[in-house]
Amino acid sequence: MKNTIGHVLTLTLFGESHGEAIGCVLDGLPSGLKVDEAYIAKQMDLRRAAGSLSTARREADLPRFVSGVKDGFTEGTPLTILIENTNVRRSDYDAMRYTARPGHADYTAELRYDGYQDASGGGHFSGRLTAPLVAAGAILRQALEEQGILIGSHIRSLHGIADAPFDPNELGAQIAGLNEKPFAVLDAAAGELMMQAIEKAREEQDSLGGILETAVCGFPGGIGEPTFGSVESRLAEAMFSIGAVKGIEFGAGFAFADMKGSEANDAFRVQDGRIVTETNHNGGINGGITNGMPIIFRTVIKPTPSISRLQNTVNFSTMENTELEIHGRHDPAIIHRGRVVVDCMTAFILADMLCEDSGRNRLRKSI
Amino acid sequence: MKNTIGHVLTLTLFGESHGEAIGCVLDGLPSGLKVDEAYIAKQMDLRRAAGSLSTARREADLPRFVSGVKDGFTEGTPLTILIENTNVRRSDYDAMRYTARPGHADYTAELRYDGYQDASGGGHFSGRLTAPLVAAGAILRQALEEQGILIGSHIRSLHGIADAPFDPNELGAQIAGLNEKPFAVLDAAAGELMMQAIEKAREEQDSLGGILETAVCGFPGGIGEPTFGSVESRLAEAMFSIGAVKGIEFGAGFAFADMKGSEANDAFRVQDGRIVTETNHNGGINGGITNGMPIIFRTVIKPTPSISRLQNTVNFSTMENTELEIHGRHDPAIIHRGRVVVDCMTAFILADMLCEDSGRNRLRKSI
Amino acid sequence: MKNTIGHVLTLTLFGESHGEAIGCVLDGLPSGLKVDEAYIAKQMDLRRAAGSLSTARREADLPRFVSGVKDGFTEGTPLTILIENTNVRRSDYDAMRYTARPGHADYTAELRYDGYQDASGGGHFSGRLTAPLVAAGAILRQALEEQGILIGSHIRSLHGIADAPFDPNELGAQIAGLNEKPFAVLDAAAGELMMQAIEKAREEQDSLGGILETAVCGFPGGIGEPTFGSVESRLAEAMFSIGAVKGIEFGAGFAFADMKGSEANDAFRVQDGRIVTETNHNGGINGGITNGMPIIFRTVIKPTPSISRLQNTVNFSTMENTELEIHGRHDPAIIHRGRVVVDCMTAFILADMLCEDSGRNRLRKSI
Amino acid sequence: MKNTIGHVLTLTLFGESHGEAIGCVLDGLPSGLKVDEAYIAKQMDLRRAAGSLSTARREADLPRFVSGVKDGFTEGTPLTILIENTNVRRSDYDAMRYTARPGHADYTAELRYDGYQDASGGGHFSGRLTAPLVAAGAILRQALEEQGILIGSHIRSLHGIADAPFDPNELGAQIAGLNEKPFAVLDAAAGELMMQAIEKAREEQDSLGGILETAVCGFPGGIGEPTFGSVESRLAEAMFSIGAVKGIEFGAGFAFADMKGSEANDAFRVQDGRIVTETNHNGGINGGITNGMPIIFRTVIKPTPSISRLQNTVNFSTMENTELEIHGRHDPAIIHRGRVVVDCMTAFILADMLCEDSGRNRLRKSI
Repeated sequence: MKNTIGHVLTLTLFGESHGEAIGCVLDGLPSGLKVDEAYIAKQMDLRRAAGSLSTARREADLPRFVSGVKDGFTEGTPLTILIENTNVRRSDYDAMRYTARPGHADYTAELRYDGYQDASGGGHFSGRLTAPLVAAGAILRQALEEQGILIGSHIRSLHGIADAPFDPNELGAQIAGLNEKPFAVLDAAAGELMMQAIEKAREEQDSLGGILETAVCGFPGGIGEPTFGSVESRLAEAMFSIGAVKGIEFGAGFAFADMKGSEANDAFRVQDGRIVTETNHNGGINGGITNGMPIIFRTVIKPTPSISRLQNTVNFSTMENTELEIHGRHDPAIIHRGRVVVDCMTAFILADMLCEDSGRNRLRKSI
Repeated sequence: MKNTIGHVLTLTLFGESHGEAIGCVLDGLPSGLKVDEAYIAKQMDLRRAAGSLSTARREADLPRFVSGVKDGFTEGTPLTILIENTNVRRSDYDAMRYTARPGHADYTAELRYDGYQDASGGGHFSGRLTAPLVAAGAILRQALEEQGILIGSHIRSLHGIADAPFDPNELGAQIAGLNEKPFAVLDAAAGELMMQAIEKAREEQDSLGGILETAVCGFPGGIGEPTFGSVESRLAEAMFSIGAVKGIEFGAGFAFADMKGSEANDAFRVQDGRIVTETNHNGGINGGITNGMPIIFRTVIKPTPSISRLQNTVNFSTMENTELEIHGRHDPAIIHRGRVVVDCMTAFILADMLCEDSGRNRLRKSI
Repeated sequence: MKNTIGHVLTLTLFGESHGEAIGCVLDGLPSGLKVDEAYIAKQMDLRRAAGSLSTARREADLPRFVSGVKDGFTEGTPLTILIENTNVRRSDYDAMRYTARPGHADYTAELRYDGYQDASGGGHFSGRLTAPLVAAGAILRQALEEQGILIGSHIRSLHGIADAPFDPNELGAQIAGLNEKPFAVLDAAAGELMMQAIEKAREEQDSLGGILETAVCGFPGGIGEPTFGSVESRLAEAMFSIGAVKGIEFGAGFAFADMKGSEANDAFRVQDGRIVTETNHNGGINGGITNGMPIIFRTVIKPTPSISRLQNTVNFSTMENTELEIHGRHDPAIIHRGRVVVDCMTAFILADMLCEDSGRNRLRKSI
Repeated sequence: MKNTIGHVLTLTLFGESHGEAIGCVLDGLPSGLKVDEAYIAKQMDLRRAAGSLSTARREADLPRFVSGVKDGFTEGTPLTILIENTNVRRSDYDAMRYTARPGHADYTAELRYDGYQDASGGGHFSGRLTAPLVAAGAILRQALEEQGILIGSHIRSLHGIADAPFDPNELGAQIAGLNEKPFAVLDAAAGELMMQAIEKAREEQDSLGGILETAVCGFPGGIGEPTFGSVESRLAEAMFSIGAVKGIEFGAGFAFADMKGSEANDAFRVQDGRIVTETNHNGGINGGITNGMPIIFRTVIKPTPSISRLQNTVNFSTMENTELEIHGRHDPAIIHRGRVVVDCMTAFILADMLCEDSGRNRLRKSI
């Protein structure tokens, strides 16, 4: 399904960085969901992260709701979000057209689209396409919040600098706090060091990546499927559609490799009449299905491939080796902007899974 | 789509560990693909990994091809694989029915299926359901091999013991070698230590996990989609449908968090008239699309949750704390068996992506 | 999706007439639905329609539920139905292998599967594959009945002989009556004439088709989608997967061509506090969505293509004209057997649409 | 999938009649397909059918290609078509808001969307949404034409007036001719009578429907699937997403009900080295798969429900009976406009089926 994701809810993404517009269609929604422009604008601001660390385009990137919304509520018909490109500079035929930027999709796009693609500014591969994802996901994020389901991410580590871990006893408050911060860390001092590292990378014409850790609390147990529709499958599919993500792990994740079963297993306990686990190494998911504990996962964001340093590469038209110096301002890191993309895609997937779960129950007699 | 995965090719999995049969339906196949029972049997033997380290059921687990195959070739109609359960002991009402085994899906299955599920032996969640996955994937693995596309995995690490890494210059030969080994390591000495660690875990009534590293060579560039259908999305979705997998990373993966862009970017070079990259930190994928370099990814397998030690848990019927001692023989590790499941699921996804890529080109005039 | 149909519920069909088994996988079900073997057996008996008019195979065709069912209820996991072929006579290489039976799929199967298909007895195209459809649909038919949703079909016309039309005021009783009759007509005298016509066709080594009219009552309003998921789209897609169906019309159907808008429009009225329409020319569907009136549609069944008379045809291997005489007993009509296939497929689609409708509402705050 | 149709190619439709814009996203396309604005404009002109018989909005309805197109060719990325609504008059709260227009979706939309939908001008149900369908389908229609696949429809009958039937020996020329005519008939005299009948209906404040007959020639044999993906299923699903269509039949269609098998079967013959059938009662399709003969089907278009006459209806807010007089100009018939919608949706489905067919063959060794 290429540029569409989701089962009951579907999200179709379109546009190129320097085309007329980018946007998405969100379908399968119920009518009557709030479309709160202030809430959405706040999410989009977190993505843009204006400030010294970012080079987001000047243009406002305000989403236009061209269908599916009336008087601040979803109509239930396909909801289309459009972000017009006011700052278009298609320049396919410039000197760089056939020079593959290392770490970017220029060369693979050429293989995939045989030269017909709009290559300016990354075209359909531009990080700019995460803007409509955030706008669409924000609608679902708010709907989940109204059901007490909270999602938040922090920068768990960046170039050797570690943030404080989530505190299971303070998760709700920590998530709420993170969602107010432009640079999402739990430990302000660690955040300061991270920002310095990013600033230093900029001075060195270089860039940095890092690890995001995402927590979801309030999500009901019993959601998910045993195999192909496991919570892990669904979230991973979504996260890897964000360009810079190159890894995902749930709960203890890769640390499981060095654990014993007796350490790894989460003992169940009854607490205040609810079943909980003593530890949460499985990240809230057993056998692909949520168990009512917080869902915890980490994604790794690779360093931004756009750096100003001289790099070796090829011209894939002449098939010759060449060198490349990318001019202009570049983001030395995008991890602090990417976290809201992760949050909003998480909201989309979890909302979809809730819908999928409910549907089938209509067939039971008593319902 | 719950228990179905794939776009042009689809795989639908069914069955419970102690039901009448388990199996799958593989649809969307071309006619005329070889169904080589010896090849399939060999893959299934690798999964069963008979020997001191495993407790696979005695029964033969021979797949019955009940439809879609004639005279050793696919017919093009839905191919159904059935593995009859000859060793059925449904025992839902025994003492353990409502005692949640830690790390297992007993409790989440109860939430999801409201008590109607067959819980014996893990039911639909049993690792036994990977047998039909291997049988189905093996057909595609062989089809890919005939096109020069090779897939192989080794145990990259296990409880602190590391295997030698893949050697990019020997990849084809290394993959071929791994596919002959019941315990897939590149360095025999490391393998010996791993097997000792597993044996020790068994003695301690405990279990171990580990990290599998998978390499694919010979796969063409230009396959994949920019966002939701990225190679990473597709492979991750598939890998997380294997019960024990809790993390996946591509190329440098989580190590990207500590790298700079200038280290992380893979410089392109022309070599023997082909475009290659000097390093392969991106695991053969840029912007979700293959670049012609080997596809490299790692999956983490958590320690087998079935251990004989006494564990704390709950009875989810009475909602009381209790203790649990699981009797019988258990696999102290499954990673050496899991690798062929990873390989065969990889074959399925890559074959599907090739099909998806080809289809659209029919509309071009000259084709 | 080739051999799979459905959105929230999915049905995957497999098997060849003379292969090892035929069957289907029904997925997406809630747990806890009744699987009433007597109810299912009755539906399958109606399909087999043993008696002088039919030549159904002697074998029992009893469905085996190999997964997804426990103690008479759905588990919620994939439900697999298997009907073993006890009467297998694969005979691909006989004299008829390359002789295209007119009206059958022998030649198109050859084009589609390049000769690898099992051609014996129609292979995957055999009418026998409607048996698992009936078994699967029967589960949903019963679930709908428990919600007061009744489905029934009668033979509206056959070779110029017309049955009485449905009486809107007696619809529930009429449907109940039809579901008890092996030969489904409202007017017994018309039925007698139809059976005579079929008997006469048999004597003439010929065959007959006819028109089925299906009514659904008790189905809620507000179900369906405006365009691609319209009730008409969904039902038509399903009906045309039954081999002999070559047309479908809803409400007034093709008669609309000669009506004026003032005759065709169904006036709305309030009756006993409910909104109804005075006429039901739209067959209970406006803009693709149910309006609460009975859903009415008609399907045409073409005459059975298997006739004993000498026919002109080709040998598609030698590419020469030839003649064909099909030996053995053939059904001179299948319409009286096909009606339960139509009913059960209707149940599947309507159940799926109910599930799809419910799912999305989970996102509304109050739910 | 609600507002999305297609397998390899997908088409997602959005917008409301009086919202900001209507449009669609066409995904899965190969790169390098021609996007010929003149060709598309011509198709859209046929849909608008300006002239005395139609009341299409004055605005130009020119499609904006906001993504996926560069320099007149598809890029291979999602192609988005936008038609801005320049003539917006949202008027939900006028006197008519809760008065159900008979034959329209006002009441069913209220049931489906709980009052949140934009009801002005039919909202998402407006016939205006066929404009982006035509624009999208036109791209594929042209791609098929370049492969020698021609699609055309004529008004087979209208209120008792019959056009001449297709002549199998002149089909290509007849299709070419129809595609140049604003009022698509084969017999000009019949067309004259039809136009008079429509004019008379207008004078009587009434409306008419009719039957469209569509022919496809040049389409290869062997395309389609045996059951759920039959050519009939795929085309019917698409046709019933056009609001006014209430029936479809293939080949002899409903006339099969009165035929005998010996009359209905199409005898195969070898002619000029190709296999053809002597008659084409099956409309070019056997067992759901094309046989290389022209595909022939008929769709019935119900009379336009918007008529100016006084009609009985209800106010679904007050739940009271009322009367309705719809003011303004209305189309007394839309069949002459609808035929290009049928043609373009046919092109979309057939193009999708060709793509689906090709994909799987990549797995064969020699390809």
